Amino acid sequence: VHNFVHMCRWVALRCLVALSILSVIECSNQVHGPCEVEFWPHPKDIVNGTEVIPISFNSLRIEYISSNVSPQEQTKVNKVVDQFTSTQFFHHRKIATTFPPFTLYIHLGPGFDYGAPTLQTNETYKLFVGLSNNATIDTASISGLIYGLETFSQLILYNNQTEIPGWCDEVSFDGYFIPQAPWIVEDTPRFRWRGLMLDTSRHYLNIDVLEQTVLALAHTKMNVLHLHLTDAQSFPVEFQPPLDVMAKKGSYTYNQRYSAEMLKELQQFAELWGVRIIPEFDSPGHVYSWAYAFPEILVCKDFQPDWAQYCNEPPCGQLNPTLNQTYDVVHGIMAQAGNLFQDEFIHLGYDEVNFNCWNSSEEILRFMDENQMNSQQLLQYYFTNQLKGLPEGKTPVFWEEVFDEGLDIPNDSVIQVWNTLTEFTNVLENSQNPVLLSNNDAWYLDCGMGNFVGRQPSWCDYNSWQNVYLNEPFEMVPHPVPQDYIDRTYGGEVAMWGEMVDATNVLHEAWPRAAAAGERLWSPASFSNPIEALPRILKHRQRLVDRGIPATPIQPLWCNYNPSHCNPTHPPIDVMSHR
Amino acid sequence: VHNFVHMCRWVALRCLVALSILSVIECSNQVHGPCEVEFWPHPKDIVNGTEVIPISFNSLRIEYISSNVSPQEQTKVNKVVDQFTSTQFFHHRKIATTFPPFTLYIHLGPGFDYGAPTLQTNETYKLFVGLSNNATIDTASISGLIYGLETFSQLILYNNQTEIPGWCDEVSFDGYFIPQAPWIVEDTPRFRWRGLMLDTSRHYLNIDVLEQTVLALAHTKMNVLHLHLTDAQSFPVEFQPPLDVMAKKGSYTYNQRYSAEMLKELQQFAELWGVRIIPEFDSPGHVYSWAYAFPEILVCKDFQPDWAQYCNEPPCGQLNPTLNQTYDVVHGIMAQAGNLFQDEFIHLGYDEVNFNCWNSSEEILRFMDENQMNSQQLLQYYFTNQLKGLPEGKTPVFWEEVFDEGLDIPNDSVIQVWNTLTEFTNVLENSQNPVLLSNNDAWYLDCGMGNFVGRQPSWCDYNSWQNVYLNEPFEMVPHPVPQDYIDRTYGGEVAMWGEMVDATNVLHEAWPRAAAAGERLWSPASFSNPIEALPRILKHRQRLVDRGIPATPIQPLWCNYNPSHCNPTHPPIDVMSHR
Repeated sequence: VHNFVHMCRWVALRCLVALSILSVIECSNQVHGPCEVEFWPHPKDIVNGTEVIPISFNSLRIEYISSNVSPQEQTKVNKVVDQFTSTQFFHHRKIATTFPPFTLYIHLGPGFDYGAPTLQTNETYKLFVGLSNNATIDTASISGLIYGLETFSQLILYNNQTEIPGWCDEVSFDGYFIPQAPWIVEDTPRFRWRGLMLDTSRHYLNIDVLEQTVLALAHTKMNVLHLHLTDAQSFPVEFQPPLDVMAKKGSYTYNQRYSAEMLKELQQFAELWGVRIIPEFDSPGHVYSWAYAFPEILVCKDFQPDWAQYCNEPPCGQLNPTLNQTYDVVHGIMAQAGNLFQDEFIHLGYDEVNFNCWNSSEEILRFMDENQMNSQQLLQYYFTNQLKGLPEGKTPVFWEEVFDEGLDIPNDSVIQVWNTLTEFTNVLENSQNPVLLSNNDAWYLDCGMGNFVGRQPSWCDYNSWQNVYLNEPFEMVPHPVPQDYIDRTYGGEVAMWGEMVDATNVLHEAWPRAAAAGERLWSPASFSNPIEALPRILKHRQRLVDRGIPATPIQPLWCNYNPSHCNPTHPPIDVMSHR
Repeated sequence: VHNFVHMCRWVALRCLVALSILSVIECSNQVHGPCEVEFWPHPKDIVNGTEVIPISFNSLRIEYISSNVSPQEQTKVNKVVDQFTSTQFFHHRKIATTFPPFTLYIHLGPGFDYGAPTLQTNETYKLFVGLSNNATIDTASISGLIYGLETFSQLILYNNQTEIPGWCDEVSFDGYFIPQAPWIVEDTPRFRWRGLMLDTSRHYLNIDVLEQTVLALAHTKMNVLHLHLTDAQSFPVEFQPPLDVMAKKGSYTYNQRYSAEMLKELQQFAELWGVRIIPEFDSPGHVYSWAYAFPEILVCKDFQPDWAQYCNEPPCGQLNPTLNQTYDVVHGIMAQAGNLFQDEFIHLGYDEVNFNCWNSSEEILRFMDENQMNSQQLLQYYFTNQLKGLPEGKTPVFWEEVFDEGLDIPNDSVIQVWNTLTEFTNVLENSQNPVLLSNNDAWYLDCGMGNFVGRQPSWCDYNSWQNVYLNEPFEMVPHPVPQDYIDRTYGGEVAMWGEMVDATNVLHEAWPRAAAAGERLWSPASFSNPIEALPRILKHRQRLVDRGIPATPIQPLWCNYNPSHCNPTHPPIDVMSHR
């Protein structure tokens, strides 16, 4: 009965509000300023009004409209809700206000998905804020609940009229409030894989920084943290024997390693924020750090000083695909990684394999000669043998080179494109596999900060937030976009490679630019005008800072207070496509 | 007698050590690694040996060899020394070691300059570290003492053999030590003005961040923090009436202002680290924030949307030079600034004056017509009238436009060049004034991070640390460099404009790149090879991080541990001049 009443209320209010709003306002979201709601990412559908509703830490009550929730499930829901009520809704909690009680109803219906987020999770939610101090979140999963709460948090603004006269002139009291009520938000993501890749090998990133990244992702409704865990420079993942030597010898120092316990803690933290952790163990290139434990399975190890012929950055080194021991190690890594990480997907690398490196080995040349293989066939040989060790239930992700080199890959495996949008379109049109977009000309966040091996400029240009924002996956495919392309485009990831970032600056460099990709991947494609988006991302950046994420400013603060006064003189330059 | 003994010891030891070293080692500084001394900036002259001297927090004793030191003077010296012994020498103080006592002798001779740093301060110092657990700093000023202590701190390394086997194989114990002893360092700066400019108007920078900047400057032997205090966006400096309205109305919020007390605290802090604070009050352009208090003295106020015709970035606005009230305000600012800041120099701006802005005012056009003035003459009129209010004893600094526009400026006033090195050379050769180098194509640290008003790239390219480092002031003048050019080149400043940085990231973006300019300005011109400099700046960056400055990494950590393995494949590209 409770559920039925609730549903009737939802439907009735929706109609009522829509009617009243249509008659009162024309386009409330054209108004910008410190006292306006600015969503990021923009929800799919919103309808809203003009009323101000006071709300405070003491006045907020949570009520669950639920059926058949187990104690464990309720505990998990409580944890998720507490995360928001304790730190995300009210940043200046100390201010005591005596407002009328405000009730947030949370609907936990039959079939609600209490599990960890997966690619299949239904992330849809509805949020309704009425005029009589109540709100309702209606959703089918923990992820949907998190996103409903996040959107609710973005409705809550703060006024301090006493100390800052003129701040919110339309609000007559100090404290928190929801403006422009009532609200109806119906929201669902455009793509289901919305990620950020961090590199923990060039520099170690401690668990605190990874958890702060998870928070920033969740506040932006992004759901994947892809960890490029190992590379040539260091091997920070602690494994069980006989692979324990890999971190013992290949990590930078004893306190720059991830233990199984730390990885478990990280994944539990991420699960409560709806974020999946995707581990990457890159091979057969980018493996020099494996040589500290197993020097015999590598060739072209740290060739100097003419490294550029054998790899894309020092130190060089590539697995020797002709040795059985190589597969003992690779299969051992995959098996242990399968246990350490709960997500269905495991990234196996395959970027930038260098055939000169293999050709530098007499042993490999002899093997190729004896087996009448060319370099591509040797790569396929390595691939086929590595995949024999894929743990059951796991689906692999690869960098785009598996497509470029024409490898025979499993149908369900995912191809992540890191070159250009042209290349992405090519892979989409000419493969049958699921794809992820991470083109460096828009979504590499480490570009433009110089070149670590010399004084040439960075090999790729700095991607401003506008460039990140304008990166439309289907820009180059025929329209209407074929349903098959839509189905196979899981989404994308911005990538922050680690040569020039460590714990001191990785959050600063990644945010708020990663959030620009977050909206591209969440909101309808029609959200594509950076001038429209500007006041919203300015406020989102401030929100991230208020929540402890040291996101970089993108305009002088004056522009936050004077929306539209910091636009280009010639707007058309900015609204057009970036290609 | 004490002094005499000390001097004899100095001379005798110097000869002894030089002899012993010459016979033992060839070129000890070619060795790099975690257990090697890496100076930044490199001292003028060093001689050293091969011995390891243990040292610890408990074993260090300070002894003064002094004459006629007043109690106040001794107090100041103690404060300076304590700053180093308490936080800069030993970062892991907790480790208790029972080493033999180590005595650091500090020589405070007759004529020692205990005053605040000025352009005339003698910054020379000598540091001697013997083989019998003693060291001596010999210098003539507080600044010299600070630099001697800084160099001494750079000699002190740390070994933790127990936890990190193989870290310093040549050191047989855990704890702090000075390697490669004995040491003789004789050091003096090449230029006397070694600065960083920060912008506190586009974003407010709190005193904590400014003090951390002072620390980073001092550790790099830089001595000027130039504060671009006001600009179009905000006016954060609190003045006495009748100018108190300027910050009350023109600052962002009540807690984004500098009170007189805060500025005093900052200057006292900076004085103890040998850093001069140079204030800038930019006019007649870049003054929109003045309009909140005095709207009547500005023209072309926030012209929109075609702002680009009237100023270089929004909001536009320029002082009306035809009004008496303009000079009341400008003279009031200079008078109060003269009291708030103790340094001899005051920066008065004059960059990017836009004649279209003035021409947009009927009143100004009429004034020019009546007085038969062109725009340049109107600028000279403003200049002449402004300078009538220069406080006694103050020397002005101007941006290069005063030269470009052919203004008649005082002989001792300083011209700061922000365009190219070509422009700097032109000003050096064709003016008689002292000059400062801040060319944007090498020393603007904010370049390359996008354009805040649109999605075009930044108007200037990112300057990597190598580009900053290779910026040689005299590269384009005839050699040998005329003595007059050397005398008039006070030095230079790297500039970090504030559109895209605030307290969250200004330290990250400025360091360690600002330090690359620090060595250019301190060390002999022969230090000009970024490949030679690389292991040194890597360790300096780590030193800054250890001391609480979140400097950005410039290479994967692997490169710190494997010096010379991250060099370009083709070294000649990097050692050549950058033009």
